[in-house]
Amino acid sequence: MSKILMGPQTLVYPTPTFLIGVNVDNKPNFMTVAWGGIANSEPPMISVAIRHQRHTYRGIRQNMTFSVNIPSTDLVRETDYCGIKSGAKVNKVEDCQFNVFYGKLNNTPLIEQCPINHECKVMYILNLGSHSLIIGRIEETHISESCLTDGKPDVNKIRPFIFTMEPDSQYQAFGEVVAKAFSIGQELKAKE
Amino acid sequence: MSKILMGPQTLVYPTPTFLIGVNVDNKPNFMTVAWGGIANSEPPMISVAIRHQRHTYRGIRQNMTFSVNIPSTDLVRETDYCGIKSGAKVNKVEDCQFNVFYGKLNNTPLIEQCPINHECKVMYILNLGSHSLIIGRIEETHISESCLTDGKPDVNKIRPFIFTMEPDSQYQAFGEVVAKAFSIGQELKAKE
Repeated sequence: MSKILMGPQTLVYPTPTFLIGVNVDNKPNFMTVAWGGIANSEPPMISVAIRHQRHTYRGIRQNMTFSVNIPSTDLVRETDYCGIKSGAKVNKVEDCQFNVFYGKLNNTPLIEQCPINHECKVMYILNLGSHSLIIGRIEETHISESCLTDGKPDVNKIRPFIFTMEPDSQYQAFGEVVAKAFSIGQELKAKE
Repeated sequence: MSKILMGPQTLVYPTPTFLIGVNVDNKPNFMTVAWGGIANSEPPMISVAIRHQRHTYRGIRQNMTFSVNIPSTDLVRETDYCGIKSGAKVNKVEDCQFNVFYGKLNNTPLIEQCPINHECKVMYILNLGSHSLIIGRIEETHISESCLTDGKPDVNKIRPFIFTMEPDSQYQAFGEVVAKAFSIGQELKAKE
């Protein structure tokens, strides 16, 4: 198999579409972020990378909290909008008709329409160059009751989506189940 | 829409399936990681969370480098295996029949069968509790020539997959394209 060198690239699959919520000057704002992921299990932590000049970054510095809202495919237009526009210029909550609520952390806005919402306290801010990596401890997780099956989160009801950068910037739904995790690998074990 | 409180949970969609490569005591080893993502654009950086007691963590401390290999659905069995077993007990390279090669960083093993390979130098190691978050600067990115279309990475040829934790731990392919990014949000803009 022949390999091509591309130079250093931020090319990974999948990347998420998180809607990051903060109050900026006491007004709720949301920004779409694809650079991030879970950072720790116990206690639960999440990381998101945000450019220093972003309106959202100001809000994070003001409150030292943020939310991570996971949209469903129903909200793909709104999610894209929150990645294109700046809260310094438009009112995204109004334009997207988000129903905002607050949870355990009083100053951290959450989107009711998103199936999953995490409230986070900032633990670390690392300036890595173009972005700061914000590492937040998840203080509370909310899920829409309609997205549960037998009390468990159900990916088929949540209907999350992926941001795919290459070859064309697009959003993709989750597809077919390829295999059971912590299970199919046992077939190789049997070969030993 | 009614919300349920779940307590703090590491519940996000999507999460990746990265095969993290290191030499441990000079022998190549690979471990599957779902906690991680891009951490910075310029320069390109990536974060991965690894439990301190892992064989891979030892290799990272020894070399201060690691690789991130992105498997295709063809490798789902091998990927699961590398998440189940420890390199302290089995030879994963042999069991998975990985063709290992080395790139710019001499001591950082890469998997030929994976469509995308990143070579990374460790910039930060943050002890966050159960895991250390390893932040690496991507020094070089390799792509299989067969996964390019008109010189660009093609997600339909790469065939990456997602680790889905809830409701059942499983691997899912990428699904249908829901919308064009940096585009569909313009429809909302028009409403202003």
